[in-house]
Amino acid sequence: MEGVLTPEIWIAVAEKTGIPELRRTTRDEPDYDKLMRYRIAILDQHGIKLSDIQNVIGTLRPLSGGKEFLDELRTIVQVIILSDTFEQFAAPLLRQLNYPTLLCHRLLVADDRITGYQLRIPEQKQRAVAALKLLNYNVISAGDSFNDTAMLTEAHVGFLIHAPENVKRQFPQFKAVENHADLMRMIKATLSQPTEGGPF
Amino acid sequence: MEGVLTPEIWIAVAEKTGIPELRRTTRDEPDYDKLMRYRIAILDQHGIKLSDIQNVIGTLRPLSGGKEFLDELRTIVQVIILSDTFEQFAAPLLRQLNYPTLLCHRLLVADDRITGYQLRIPEQKQRAVAALKLLNYNVISAGDSFNDTAMLTEAHVGFLIHAPENVKRQFPQFKAVENHADLMRMIKATLSQPTEGGPF
Repeated sequence: MEGVLTPEIWIAVAEKTGIPELRRTTRDEPDYDKLMRYRIAILDQHGIKLSDIQNVIGTLRPLSGGKEFLDELRTIVQVIILSDTFEQFAAPLLRQLNYPTLLCHRLLVADDRITGYQLRIPEQKQRAVAALKLLNYNVISAGDSFNDTAMLTEAHVGFLIHAPENVKRQFPQFKAVENHADLMRMIKATLSQPTEGGPF
Repeated sequence: MEGVLTPEIWIAVAEKTGIPELRRTTRDEPDYDKLMRYRIAILDQHGIKLSDIQNVIGTLRPLSGGKEFLDELRTIVQVIILSDTFEQFAAPLLRQLNYPTLLCHRLLVADDRITGYQLRIPEQKQRAVAALKLLNYNVISAGDSFNDTAMLTEAHVGFLIHAPENVKRQFPQFKAVENHADLMRMIKATLSQPTEGGPF
C-alpha cells in the first residue's frame, strides 16, 4: 500500500511532527521489529499519541494515479492489499481508496498511547500469498520495498514498482517498473499468458 | 453472495428464459457437481449461451439493503465474499457492489458456449476460511444455504441469514437471522467480545 498506492505514513508523520528520526522505513531498516520498537520509543519520547498520528493520516491523499490504478485493477482481477501497516492507521486511506480488502497488523493501544504492536503472523505478506496459492490462485504481486521481496518470491509473478536502487540491485530477478501505467501493462501481459490446467 | 447480497443468478435466468428446470439451487440439491452438470445440460438443450446469461445478470440488482449492509461492514472489518458462483457471472454484480473482493470459481467457455466449469478447489469456501485462520484472522462467516455450512463450521463464528427452514432445522448450531440489520447487530456483538491473546 504505502509507497505504491499511498504515501509512506511514517514519513508524513515525521514531516508533520518535525521529528526526522521517524523518517526511517523498511527501505532503510529491513528488520521490521527493530524499526517498530525504534518508532514507538521515539513517539513516547515526544508524547505523540495514536490520535495525533491518525489526524496526520487523515490529511494524506493517495499517490497520484494510485486510486485510478487500483480502480482499474479491481475491474480485471481480484485484488488484496498486503501491508505491514496497522488497522488503526489504514482506515482513512482505505476510505479514500474505496475500501479494497487489506490484510495487515494491529497496534496495541492504551489510553491513546501506542504501547506496542501485534504482528498478525510473522512474514504475513509472504504467507498470505502462500495461502492464496493453496486456494489455487495464480498470484501476481507488486511491491516497492525490502519487506515485499519474500512476498514477490512466493508469488507466481512479482514486480517492483518505484523501488529504490538498492532494492532493485539486490533483487534483479523481479521486473522493475517506475509508474502505475507500466505496472498495469505488465499485469495485463501476465494475465494474457495461458494458465490452462494450472492454477487460476 | 447470492441469496445474501444479490438475487440467485440461476433463478433469475430461469425466470427470464422461461426454463423452470434452471430454478434448482444448492438449497434444493446439496451435491454441487450434480447440480452444475444438470444446469449445463439444460442450457445446451435450449441453446443458451454465456452472453445470454450475462445479459440477464446485467439486469439484476443487489437485494434490498444488501449493498448498504456490505458498505457499512467494509468500514468496520475486512470483508471477503466467498461464493460458488463463477467469475464470468459475477462481474456486473461486483460493479454494483463497489468491487468487494470475491473468491469463486470459473466457467469453461468455448465460442460463447458453456462447456463445463472449473472448481477453484473442492470445498473452496471452507478452505478459504481455514486459510484466513492460518493468517491469524478471527473469522465471522454468514451464509444462507447448504453449501455454506462447512464454511460456517470452519469459521470462529457462523450465522445463517434468511436460510430456508430445512437448512435451519438441520444446522441448529448456527444463529439464524432474517435480515441484514439483525446480521449486522450479531456481527457487531461478536466483534465487541475480547479476543486478547487469541487470533484477531
